[in-house]
Amino acid sequence: MSAYHLSESKSIAMMKFLALCFFVISLINIPIAEARIRHYKWELKYEYKSPDCYKKLVITINGRTPGPTILAQQNDTVIVEVKNSLLTANTAIHWHGIRQIGTPWFDGTEGFTQCPILPGDTFVYKFVVDRPGTYLYHAHYGMQREDGLFGSIRVALPDGESEPFAYNYDRSIILTDWYHKSTFEQAAGLSSVPFQWVGEPQSLLIQGKGRFDCSAANPPMKADVCNNTNPECSLYSTTVVPGKTYRLRISSLTALSALSFQIEGHNMTVIEADGHYVEPFVVKNLFIYSGETYSVLVYTDQDPARNYWVTTNVVSRNATTPPGLAVLNYYPNHPRRSPPTIPPSGPMWNDVDSRFNQSFAIRARKGHVYSPPATSDRVIVLLNTQNQVNGKTRRWSVNNVSYDIPHTPYLIALKENLLHTFSQTPPPEGYDFANYDIKVVQNNTNATTSDAIYRLQLNSTVDIVLQNANTMNPNNSETHPWHLHGHDFWVLGYGKGKFDPINDPKKYNLVDPIMKNTVPVHPFRLDSFLGLKLTILEFGHSIATLSRIFLWAWEWHLKKV
Amino acid sequence: MSAYHLSESKSIAMMKFLALCFFVISLINIPIAEARIRHYKWELKYEYKSPDCYKKLVITINGRTPGPTILAQQNDTVIVEVKNSLLTANTAIHWHGIRQIGTPWFDGTEGFTQCPILPGDTFVYKFVVDRPGTYLYHAHYGMQREDGLFGSIRVALPDGESEPFAYNYDRSIILTDWYHKSTFEQAAGLSSVPFQWVGEPQSLLIQGKGRFDCSAANPPMKADVCNNTNPECSLYSTTVVPGKTYRLRISSLTALSALSFQIEGHNMTVIEADGHYVEPFVVKNLFIYSGETYSVLVYTDQDPARNYWVTTNVVSRNATTPPGLAVLNYYPNHPRRSPPTIPPSGPMWNDVDSRFNQSFAIRARKGHVYSPPATSDRVIVLLNTQNQVNGKTRRWSVNNVSYDIPHTPYLIALKENLLHTFSQTPPPEGYDFANYDIKVVQNNTNATTSDAIYRLQLNSTVDIVLQNANTMNPNNSETHPWHLHGHDFWVLGYGKGKFDPINDPKKYNLVDPIMKNTVPVHPFRLDSFLGLKLTILEFGHSIATLSRIFLWAWEWHLKKV
Repeated sequence: MSAYHLSESKSIAMMKFLALCFFVISLINIPIAEARIRHYKWELKYEYKSPDCYKKLVITINGRTPGPTILAQQNDTVIVEVKNSLLTANTAIHWHGIRQIGTPWFDGTEGFTQCPILPGDTFVYKFVVDRPGTYLYHAHYGMQREDGLFGSIRVALPDGESEPFAYNYDRSIILTDWYHKSTFEQAAGLSSVPFQWVGEPQSLLIQGKGRFDCSAANPPMKADVCNNTNPECSLYSTTVVPGKTYRLRISSLTALSALSFQIEGHNMTVIEADGHYVEPFVVKNLFIYSGETYSVLVYTDQDPARNYWVTTNVVSRNATTPPGLAVLNYYPNHPRRSPPTIPPSGPMWNDVDSRFNQSFAIRARKGHVYSPPATSDRVIVLLNTQNQVNGKTRRWSVNNVSYDIPHTPYLIALKENLLHTFSQTPPPEGYDFANYDIKVVQNNTNATTSDAIYRLQLNSTVDIVLQNANTMNPNNSETHPWHLHGHDFWVLGYGKGKFDPINDPKKYNLVDPIMKNTVPVHPFRLDSFLGLKLTILEFGHSIATLSRIFLWAWEWHLKKV
Repeated sequence: MSAYHLSESKSIAMMKFLALCFFVISLINIPIAEARIRHYKWELKYEYKSPDCYKKLVITINGRTPGPTILAQQNDTVIVEVKNSLLTANTAIHWHGIRQIGTPWFDGTEGFTQCPILPGDTFVYKFVVDRPGTYLYHAHYGMQREDGLFGSIRVALPDGESEPFAYNYDRSIILTDWYHKSTFEQAAGLSSVPFQWVGEPQSLLIQGKGRFDCSAANPPMKADVCNNTNPECSLYSTTVVPGKTYRLRISSLTALSALSFQIEGHNMTVIEADGHYVEPFVVKNLFIYSGETYSVLVYTDQDPARNYWVTTNVVSRNATTPPGLAVLNYYPNHPRRSPPTIPPSGPMWNDVDSRFNQSFAIRARKGHVYSPPATSDRVIVLLNTQNQVNGKTRRWSVNNVSYDIPHTPYLIALKENLLHTFSQTPPPEGYDFANYDIKVVQNNTNATTSDAIYRLQLNSTVDIVLQNANTMNPNNSETHPWHLHGHDFWVLGYGKGKFDPINDPKKYNLVDPIMKNTVPVHPFRLDSFLGLKLTILEFGHSIATLSRIFLWAWEWHLKKV
């Protein structure tokens, strides 16, 4: 990472900055001849699909959801021509986990780095995938990601380089939750007065496929609306050869659900998280939160005469959503042949300790540790609460401020000095530590909304503490995944109760913390907080830094009341 | 109209044109002191409403659908600030029947005169309502009009001037048809391969209210989805005082349906159509087509001890849609008290003669006749067919060309000379008159799509013949309303069979034809064609003329297969 500490001047001109970028990129890309262009042409459309046997409109990329997997090698340039054919809706696509070094304007976040792509328009994203690993892409406009607009990005090492582990085959599997209501309906309900909660998802999808039990629908559904014999909702099946090692890149892009993932009869060895190698550890089930990616190694050492269940189920919420199912197909069994067993049940939804322990156990892989700075220049504590904002809608808030996306993208506003386009009142750096009781429902009558941003110094180090607290329901708190665009952070540790700014930092893991771009804050039952460290490592111009460092809640206030 | 023949030069510069406009408008507006500004602030939102007892997302203006009625006097300036809060969807609003003299860029037609209004944007429309009469506004982007984004514009005479008829009260009533599927679903089906027909509407709404029978739904619907006791879907009721004359401004903005409208026990005297006075005639039921407006006078001379049904029903299609109901409430009866009778049944759906006869009977009011030019400079014949276009989607076509909306608005493309943004191959001026059999299903394998436009000379007169023909179903043709933006045309007559360019023009009514902006072509059973005369009367600059003269089918290929 230290190679990126190149510029200390915040005042260099944009042209100079660009020239510097090209120079630096040319240094990184040695041998330059190996980096390739990966060119994709995508058309986005609304189409009727039946991912879980229920027919509804989804957003497809070239007719498919999930979209095509982007395959590239480190330092390749990825070009994606996105044609918006979504009738009357705009769009934008975020390249999740890609740092966009030198190209913050291609991060794909509407309101932050770009204006939306209009119907009929084609927008060309062009960026370098500078690190190997498992990444994602998805719509970053309204709730279009929940319409199915997402896919995988898999970045391999350059030719001749090898990973610190061995495997025979490589597969990508994205987990999502699925609602039968349109995202327009969901969003209208969530922003209406009174607030209308969307409820639990109807299905969990594994690589875009699930199974809603049409016969159990109440009121009943006609066969042209829900049909369990529709081949579109045959379960996802991945074929394996006995006696081989498979790298499975498991990721989650749920709207609401925290998940557990398991493969009947098979252990999984976790080896990568968010593009970083982790010290290998073995799990029966992997807990995964929206926006996270993991690679696990699976050895196909079980009885080859049968298939095995792949399952995912909701944790952290007492959900009504049935588990998601898929099939691990041992060749030469038929890929659609059901395993002879009952699918294994996942962990208890309220087994918070197990989830906490997984978070706590992850360490950077030996020999691949990027040591964090020992000190920080600034500490920001973010209290996660659920509020009645402005006396009306129910929304998630941070330090009693709920976030509004601005109409003018920050990147443009800052470059063009259009400071009237968003609030210049900085958001609070903390909350009333002394008096706020995180374990009870709070009135929070002073809750408000803002589109203000935290502005961080270039080349500075910032500690961020995410403090969970009670929601608007008694004795309840929720799991929150947090994602950072354009950067990774060190996960210094999890703690219980209220964060103590004097003593808790002494417990930080500064030896071998994992770097990630997405992490969960665990629920109230553990009174958890999460300490992150973030160093603003950025090429040149401060505009890019400012817009990319902003932290926001992963989900667009889509949570239980 | 001749007062508008001011400029014969097509090459005057834009600034000169604008200066001329202001000068002319100032002449028209004498006495200038009387013209006022009518200022409206609107916010568009998706909200759950139950217009016919079925709960679905609609587009509201300031929380309402239909939107507020715009009330103005002739020569007033109307300013509407439109804030788009439609989450991820753009919008545009068309001011239907307003000529936009000097302000073609405020016509509100996305792709023609403006780019769409983005979510979060506020677009300010500003135009002069230069003539008294009954007009409409509605979304002109995708199918948003069918989401409920529409309302009435009522332009009164200036103070001190009077209409050529008398009445005590003035009311506006808009008729619409209503689907339970979202317009996104409807549009996705219509543009999908294979084509998915939307079917008949579930309800007819009178001034935004109807009644779908929830108990008859199959499969049944839950009470939170469809509830006939919901006060939101109480029938529209308009209160009248006995012994008075009411001017009812009846208009239609259906997606599909041709309608009949009647008031139990009351005759209606038609006195205005599309902002023009007509020679009064009495009807028991008024046939009305999407985009048309009529004023009728109703005298409340019936038994005042009861209420009366107001009904509308589908004609021209053998539809499953039940009649729409409302209540004419004789004060002091309770407005919600049902009339003691069974609602009157409308005319037979296939009684084409009666509809034809109404179209044929309408004449300009004596003393208010604008005589059309005796000759024309050009004749364009437009064959209306239904085709399998490019071997795929089923669409309406004109002379075997189905229209595509361009991505760059014509007005901008022509002003900036961006001629690469749309096809420069002129669309055909006619079809194969000699060999085309309009009475049978045609193969039309050469059908294609185009965004080309008809470019007409300034100050020229054009005869347009709309020739109906068989659809893709045997022995079937459909009613098509046609609307012209920014201009009125003379309706010279209706004929039967195939238009004969030699003999049929001799039958044109050049004495007292009504001027309109919307007219229907009647179905095949009468082998009808419609002759229109249009004079390009426009202030100054040819750009404005070109973009505004383009004719397109009223409905966005939303018709029966």
